[in-house]
Amino acid sequence: MKDITLPHHQLRQFAFDIFRKINCSENEASLAADVLLSADLRGIDSHGLARLSGYVRLWQAKRINTTPNIKIVHETPSTAVVDGDSGLGLVVAPRAMEIAIEKANKVGTGWVAVKNSNHFGIAGFHAMMALKHDMIGMAMTNASPLVAPTFSVERLLGTNPICVAIPAGNQPPFVADFATTTAANGKLEILQRKNQEAPEGWIQKKDGTVSTNPNELKDGGALLPLGSDREHGSHKGFCLGAWVDIFSAVLSGANYGPWVPPFVSFLAPPADPVGDGIGHFFGAMRVDAFRPADEFKTHMDNWITRFRSAKTIDGQEHLIIPGDPERESEMERLQSGIPVNKKVVEDLKELGEKLNVKF
Amino acid sequence: MKDITLPHHQLRQFAFDIFRKINCSENEASLAADVLLSADLRGIDSHGLARLSGYVRLWQAKRINTTPNIKIVHETPSTAVVDGDSGLGLVVAPRAMEIAIEKANKVGTGWVAVKNSNHFGIAGFHAMMALKHDMIGMAMTNASPLVAPTFSVERLLGTNPICVAIPAGNQPPFVADFATTTAANGKLEILQRKNQEAPEGWIQKKDGTVSTNPNELKDGGALLPLGSDREHGSHKGFCLGAWVDIFSAVLSGANYGPWVPPFVSFLAPPADPVGDGIGHFFGAMRVDAFRPADEFKTHMDNWITRFRSAKTIDGQEHLIIPGDPERESEMERLQSGIPVNKKVVEDLKELGEKLNVKF
Repeated sequence: MKDITLPHHQLRQFAFDIFRKINCSENEASLAADVLLSADLRGIDSHGLARLSGYVRLWQAKRINTTPNIKIVHETPSTAVVDGDSGLGLVVAPRAMEIAIEKANKVGTGWVAVKNSNHFGIAGFHAMMALKHDMIGMAMTNASPLVAPTFSVERLLGTNPICVAIPAGNQPPFVADFATTTAANGKLEILQRKNQEAPEGWIQKKDGTVSTNPNELKDGGALLPLGSDREHGSHKGFCLGAWVDIFSAVLSGANYGPWVPPFVSFLAPPADPVGDGIGHFFGAMRVDAFRPADEFKTHMDNWITRFRSAKTIDGQEHLIIPGDPERESEMERLQSGIPVNKKVVEDLKELGEKLNVKF
Repeated sequence: MKDITLPHHQLRQFAFDIFRKINCSENEASLAADVLLSADLRGIDSHGLARLSGYVRLWQAKRINTTPNIKIVHETPSTAVVDGDSGLGLVVAPRAMEIAIEKANKVGTGWVAVKNSNHFGIAGFHAMMALKHDMIGMAMTNASPLVAPTFSVERLLGTNPICVAIPAGNQPPFVADFATTTAANGKLEILQRKNQEAPEGWIQKKDGTVSTNPNELKDGGALLPLGSDREHGSHKGFCLGAWVDIFSAVLSGANYGPWVPPFVSFLAPPADPVGDGIGHFFGAMRVDAFRPADEFKTHMDNWITRFRSAKTIDGQEHLIIPGDPERESEMERLQSGIPVNKKVVEDLKELGEKLNVKF
């Protein structure tokens, strides 16, 4: 099925209108649309407009509150816990990141754990908020359980992404934004649409044996932690996913592990929650809390330049610095438009008709 | 070649005596011996006594200063940069971690970047210092370049480990301590001694093609980032190793990437250093800077219990919680002694004879 290429401002306007229709304030609708669109622009299509109707359904199921009272419930000079009041993660997360940045301004670093939130879009958007302040930004979140830890047949963790965004000088920033699984769920969705098999090491069947079926999760299978199997370090991928889960939810008071509520409205949240909503964790570190910012940036430029110009394996043009592909996608798509999957376009049209918003 | 099992106090005494012989103060020799022995006790044999003669050779080569003036050169309420004055990493790292803990006591969290240091032993020792203060501890370090980023034939990163140590209540703490490569270098050393092949995905040849030869690094080959290849997420392992490198060295002013000086004395450090020595990064976060410590620990106990009791793949007794294997090794070895490789015993005897220390 061919993609349909649409200008970003049309998609952004549509997302904004939809968020307004579900009672977001003008500011919050604008922010939520920006976060969503940043995923489409940066080429992480699974986390952009494709999820818009999912948010709306969660709002209809009264599991998202579009007029939340987002507040700090606990703090020290360098930390805070934020209660998202069941708000859109797209709105709660930037607010929490702002608090981290404010704290970093005062005492060098700021660290904010969030409970009672929902899916926050791409981690990169939030972490990158730190860059313009000459700060390093970090963002992580837990998510509905789709991943089986090493030796487990149960799905106990989400794809739990981490983003670390580091400013440079003349070079573009270093932005590592990745799920802590071998392959993100979005990659399976692409294979499903194309009717293609997945490589070994991405998924297991419900009994824990190897699978290459991208639809395996529907039959009780699971995604695998980064590393794929024990021999190739999947226990390290499990460490990463667990770390994200604990920082995001055990520090904040959100649900963790198998208790994380599902993103989809047709699955009920666990009946015995151990906390509130899903959890995130954010960090901001002022570069000049360590050394003068210009010195730091000069060395970051040197780091990036040296790595990018490394001798490559035959056939590879150059090393890819974390953040390069997403930035290139953004530049391209701002200019030429965003290719949207035809099914997603149909879904958006239907959503528009339901809520009386022009697509 | 069979191992020889020796009581830990004998090995500790020997390490202490050797550190005294190379002019460490009594306190610092004691600390360095503790850090080194903790590796042997926890089953990370490559980072314990096996490295003692290496530290001595670096001291003989005047690349380690055993009477360092370790000092803070820059700080804010939540951060510091420490100059290790070419000291033993085994001594510099715990001092830096203490500073992180002091800062966390005052403002909730403490973050310390270190330059001008050397190999610090196992990351776990330092991160775990936070636990008894009801803090989460983090430790990372860069290291001599042995790892080729995705698409590179050049070795640009070390095995750059990360440790995250998180306190629990009745359960033992969560301690994830891992190299950001598919396999740690110590695992290759074991295969070399046994004359066995490595699995595919651990190593590449100097032209970037697959290798299973554990001696490949001697011929210009490289270790691979966690994930092994692009299809299985090695770019994420590269992100992790790069993150550790930048936090440890670009924030602190140490050498980074291919400029990190080698641990072995027979290889000269790069002639064009971009900083001082190798770099580390430490963090301490007071749990009660987020929520009451007893609440946090109750949920950590619940997290650990739930994961440990998950349904397993046939033949697996239970899930392994990060830190379990190392703690079990420590309990066992404290009681029954530490099995030391015969080659290492010979090396230690020779070292003792040279420095006139009884083994």
